[in-house]
Amino acid sequence: MYANNEVGTVQAIAEIGKIARARGIAFHTDAVQAGGQLNLDVERLNVDLLALSAHKFYGPKGVGVLYVRSGTELISALTGGGHERGRRPGTVNVAEIVGLATALRLAQERRETENARVAALRDQLVAGVFERISEVQLTGHPTRRLPNSASFAIHGVEGETLLMALDLEGICVSTGSACTTGEAEPSFVLTALGLPRDWALGSLRMTLGHLTKPEDIATVLDVLPRVVEQLRDA
Amino acid sequence: MYANNEVGTVQAIAEIGKIARARGIAFHTDAVQAGGQLNLDVERLNVDLLALSAHKFYGPKGVGVLYVRSGTELISALTGGGHERGRRPGTVNVAEIVGLATALRLAQERRETENARVAALRDQLVAGVFERISEVQLTGHPTRRLPNSASFAIHGVEGETLLMALDLEGICVSTGSACTTGEAEPSFVLTALGLPRDWALGSLRMTLGHLTKPEDIATVLDVLPRVVEQLRDA
Repeated sequence: MYANNEVGTVQAIAEIGKIARARGIAFHTDAVQAGGQLNLDVERLNVDLLALSAHKFYGPKGVGVLYVRSGTELISALTGGGHERGRRPGTVNVAEIVGLATALRLAQERRETENARVAALRDQLVAGVFERISEVQLTGHPTRRLPNSASFAIHGVEGETLLMALDLEGICVSTGSACTTGEAEPSFVLTALGLPRDWALGSLRMTLGHLTKPEDIATVLDVLPRVVEQLRDA
Repeated sequence: MYANNEVGTVQAIAEIGKIARARGIAFHTDAVQAGGQLNLDVERLNVDLLALSAHKFYGPKGVGVLYVRSGTELISALTGGGHERGRRPGTVNVAEIVGLATALRLAQERRETENARVAALRDQLVAGVFERISEVQLTGHPTRRLPNSASFAIHGVEGETLLMALDLEGICVSTGSACTTGEAEPSFVLTALGLPRDWALGSLRMTLGHLTKPEDIATVLDVLPRVVEQLRDA
């Protein structure tokens, strides 16, 4: 993963790619979380394959990109018709492909200014959480992380319960990955990072976007400590 | 296949399904060509699985339906997240799913009146082709076929060349299946039907739709014989 979907940590893909290339190993990166925020220069990243999903950068749902370096041998995961030079059978979704391309162009054009704006808000959010809530940890790398990602482990709170309580207050958050929604076990990512179970269960993942304004951060910093306190008292 | 994609023949799915069910055999039908034209009552059809594609009934490209009878065991063709109860990983394309459902409802509501209208035009087209062109065969079943499907084998004409010549005249046709576009070999469907190679290479597939008007049939019956004659003379 170029950037982790749960904790936002940005991996050293270019360095890993350099090692893989020196040994003739094909190197794929899942860049789905990075499409709108990071540099996608496949030469600089030393990747042979790179995957994106349009809805992560405000494009339509249901369409993605697989970059394939010339000469990289691929085995199709789906078989059937010979569409897309045998790589993927099925009638091509032209409208969504055009939508993806436009959304990606816009996201990459605005990337630097938007990253700076969002990272400043994110930093306020993180600082505010540490000021107002006890027994909280930032999960993932403190600096090598997506500018829009703030993820925490909050001790003594169950992530799913916190999510629902915040939802009732009009605040949308996530706990772990959408791919494992509904699972009661702590995230394997947080467990691998060394978090004990009673911390990892209190996972809170907040992602900022192009609609996030300073007043949203103020609202979260007002509501979140109160909700955490209520849940801990309950 | 409920209806064949190349020649429009409607298969006796209900009868096949009855035999399969009596023997406890799971039965799947690819109903992609039939979504807008045929009855999709899965009880009547005796199917356990039925697949549809939205763009075949004027819905969006990139979305389909897999009907799965309760209790039918499925092995997911794709793995990853647990979305759609583990049947298909990936963020659900809500907009296209809603579009599909609306398009399918409209197509099924209008099915009988639209089928009658289109079949009458199709019958004019078929009769006109036989009147005006020599050495031509209807491919597929003469009556048990989709109301919108007219498919022919025209002797002494190469299908792809005919397609391009008609395209220059503003007439969009197909030759064989979109899944095998660009292949120089005759269609395996036509070969299986017993057509000799010199007939099967002259495959012409015309599909009528909700935009097809009587004057379109007149145009095709004016242009097609002339183009076929030119190609045969060349």
